Amino acid sequence: MANSHQAPKGTRDFYPADMAVRRHIEAAWRGASIRHGFDEIDGPTFEHLGLYTVKSGEGIVNELFSFRRAGGENDYALRPEFTPTLARMVAARGSALPVPTKWFAVPNFFRAERPQRGRLREFFQWNVDLLGLDTPGADSEVIGTAIAALEALGLKQGDVTVKLSHRGAVAGALRAVGVPDEQLGAAFALLDRRDKLPPEEFAKRAAALGATGDLGEAITRLARATAPASAGLDGLARDVGVPAAELGALEALRDALRAAGIEDWCQWDCGIVRGLAYYTGVVFEIHAAGERAVAGGGRYDGLVELFGGPHTPAVGFGMGDVVLGNLLRDKGLLPADGMELLPRPDVFVVAANDAAAAQMPSIVSSLRRAGLHARHSYKATRNVGKLLGEAGKSRARFAVILGDGCVGAGAGGGTGAGMGEVPGGIVQLKDLGSGEQRELPMSELISALKS
Amino acid sequence: MANSHQAPKGTRDFYPADMAVRRHIEAAWRGASIRHGFDEIDGPTFEHLGLYTVKSGEGIVNELFSFRRAGGENDYALRPEFTPTLARMVAARGSALPVPTKWFAVPNFFRAERPQRGRLREFFQWNVDLLGLDTPGADSEVIGTAIAALEALGLKQGDVTVKLSHRGAVAGALRAVGVPDEQLGAAFALLDRRDKLPPEEFAKRAAALGATGDLGEAITRLARATAPASAGLDGLARDVGVPAAELGALEALRDALRAAGIEDWCQWDCGIVRGLAYYTGVVFEIHAAGERAVAGGGRYDGLVELFGGPHTPAVGFGMGDVVLGNLLRDKGLLPADGMELLPRPDVFVVAANDAAAAQMPSIVSSLRRAGLHARHSYKATRNVGKLLGEAGKSRARFAVILGDGCVGAGAGGGTGAGMGEVPGGIVQLKDLGSGEQRELPMSELISALKS
Repeated sequence: MANSHQAPKGTRDFYPADMAVRRHIEAAWRGASIRHGFDEIDGPTFEHLGLYTVKSGEGIVNELFSFRRAGGENDYALRPEFTPTLARMVAARGSALPVPTKWFAVPNFFRAERPQRGRLREFFQWNVDLLGLDTPGADSEVIGTAIAALEALGLKQGDVTVKLSHRGAVAGALRAVGVPDEQLGAAFALLDRRDKLPPEEFAKRAAALGATGDLGEAITRLARATAPASAGLDGLARDVGVPAAELGALEALRDALRAAGIEDWCQWDCGIVRGLAYYTGVVFEIHAAGERAVAGGGRYDGLVELFGGPHTPAVGFGMGDVVLGNLLRDKGLLPADGMELLPRPDVFVVAANDAAAAQMPSIVSSLRRAGLHARHSYKATRNVGKLLGEAGKSRARFAVILGDGCVGAGAGGGTGAGMGEVPGGIVQLKDLGSGEQRELPMSELISALKS
Repeated sequence: MANSHQAPKGTRDFYPADMAVRRHIEAAWRGASIRHGFDEIDGPTFEHLGLYTVKSGEGIVNELFSFRRAGGENDYALRPEFTPTLARMVAARGSALPVPTKWFAVPNFFRAERPQRGRLREFFQWNVDLLGLDTPGADSEVIGTAIAALEALGLKQGDVTVKLSHRGAVAGALRAVGVPDEQLGAAFALLDRRDKLPPEEFAKRAAALGATGDLGEAITRLARATAPASAGLDGLARDVGVPAAELGALEALRDALRAAGIEDWCQWDCGIVRGLAYYTGVVFEIHAAGERAVAGGGRYDGLVELFGGPHTPAVGFGMGDVVLGNLLRDKGLLPADGMELLPRPDVFVVAANDAAAAQMPSIVSSLRRAGLHARHSYKATRNVGKLLGEAGKSRARFAVILGDGCVGAGAGGGTGAGMGEVPGGIVQLKDLGSGEQRELPMSELISALKS
């Protein structure tokens, strides 16, 4: 019972101000997805444990929350990422799906790792996937969708960089120093972890990969090989040490990014490989200076087949809410009080005397049934000044003041208005922005508020 | 690996048509909540197991999915309901919260029970809670919020009934046949399960409660005590066998429901008790004929205190997506194809020749950056008739046809348009509703589509 008063470590309680921020971010994700023609999907919050042991790289399996129902036979795991669920769903429908299939999702994920800045045990992540096409245009379209959401949240070119690489080009560089094909996966993982390992440990692991040339030097060269996407690729090809021919995929992607008007957000960075084992082509991460990646993704043409589906080229990314939220806060793109992001009430109803207060429930109900966001005070005071102060704090657009005029000609009998009806009489309508106030018959109130 | 191709038993894959239905229902829930002045919150998907053993009735503890992190010390459980999280969050903020505090949430919940019609292992549930007031007006406001969402989904008075009871009134009837106070909780649970138990088992359990009068007869009488909310309460008081004085709470609630214009949706039903142990006053369920409850809730004035918070009167309900979805389908209130509920594209872009197709990426990007929902074909065909057919199937409002005119005066140099710019030239704009078609300069396309 001691710690049952708190949210579990690494999880969050979303009070209204926190939830408003989450919904603000999700709205940008959803809006960008829909504008770009993606349809929303979702899967179960937990899956059969076996779904994650198919091909996810070892890193993720150690971080799972897994469990078994009392008396049950199956092991389950809370989803740590979306791609295995997506691959399973695509495989289940197979060739019945349209080409391309364009899906997005905004699920929560779970990692049983130690919580730290930017990494929680439960977080929300936008997933965007385009399946069925293996064109640079498809790669560019998903990258453009990510940028559109960041722009909608107020980030500008220069605030973040889309760092682009390609597993094929990096593989070429690794093969050039004699890394055998069966060790390429391990070499990618080592490249991905180069900043996290002590130099001796790095050197030891590099040596174990069986390269004939200087692998450590090649990896360092790859990690340093960066250039604006708009620059020519010859320099990059030379720095990375692969034949220019292998960079053809990057050239085609560069052209597609240029056509979509997003080339200037992008930079080549051959140090980007992504930790997960299933990527096959372009890989990318979106970074702000000095922070963990805001988003990461790439092409995973082989994954759907692994789940029993047809061969399905695919490209996608994930963007989490935690790093992004930190970035938006650092850039001053979130209000100090998240409550400012909540929908503003259309109207705050004020009762100037007890007789008006008796009419309040039926009037407020009528306004809400008419589709208006209506609030009122729950305090006993009839002080109109105080009540208008509360109306202002609620951020309502208008206040309606019910006074003698309202009650004099109000609905008879005290039984209140029927559904959708408003009692008769006269009310004061005050525009809380301009301060203007005017009298109008109650019967015109709803149409006045809606116009 | 065998069953990792399927979603776990009792969980769902939400393909776009399924997700559209879920979002349609959630939008009605969210809209009604906001109109009624509730702010959205959420909590963690899993909680410390201890949170659910505080006071949830035995029924729920047996149905938990619980787990422990490898090497960790704490037991966790996937949330089976929201109220314990809510009580914990209220207790944590204590008197810093406004009075009343009006919160809603739309989380998913998990029950490790056998899946059946209307009951899944993972489901979504709308939760609405009003804390800090112990007035009939507060009870009426949350019930009215539930009704508003059902109305927004197309349900009408008569399609569903709000069945109302009161733990105090029922307790009075039970005490009248000599049930001791310490057995009232067990008697509520027995009343709640009367339809699920064989008669002998029911009689055996009733006998064990230590009533001095005929408890079985009293429970049968309670279960049969129904009346329209608009009817006088004398008959109900007599049938139920409690002093009329104990029905005062119901009279006050009736008046509040009448003032809010929702009395005709409601019915007294003293057989409604709700299974959970924490209810203290009014309890209610919303039913369609022959189905499980669409929603259920009531007053739980003691719960926040149990979690270490101040004494906090509270009333709330939960409404799940599964039973509600079945009901909407049965009433013909969902389209046969959920895709019809998806947002319609603003525009579908058609390329009439290869030169126009080369301009497509920059034009589509420009439209999307301008905030428009733009789609296009991924097929290689330049047959305008076929492409307009695809535009129609996409449910787009307009088609834009890029032909010779577009390319002739298009952006020079093949580098595509800059951000936010549209290449020059002439395009055809076709209204896919009316069939009207007109020519306009590309520079006017965005403003034409936005107006």
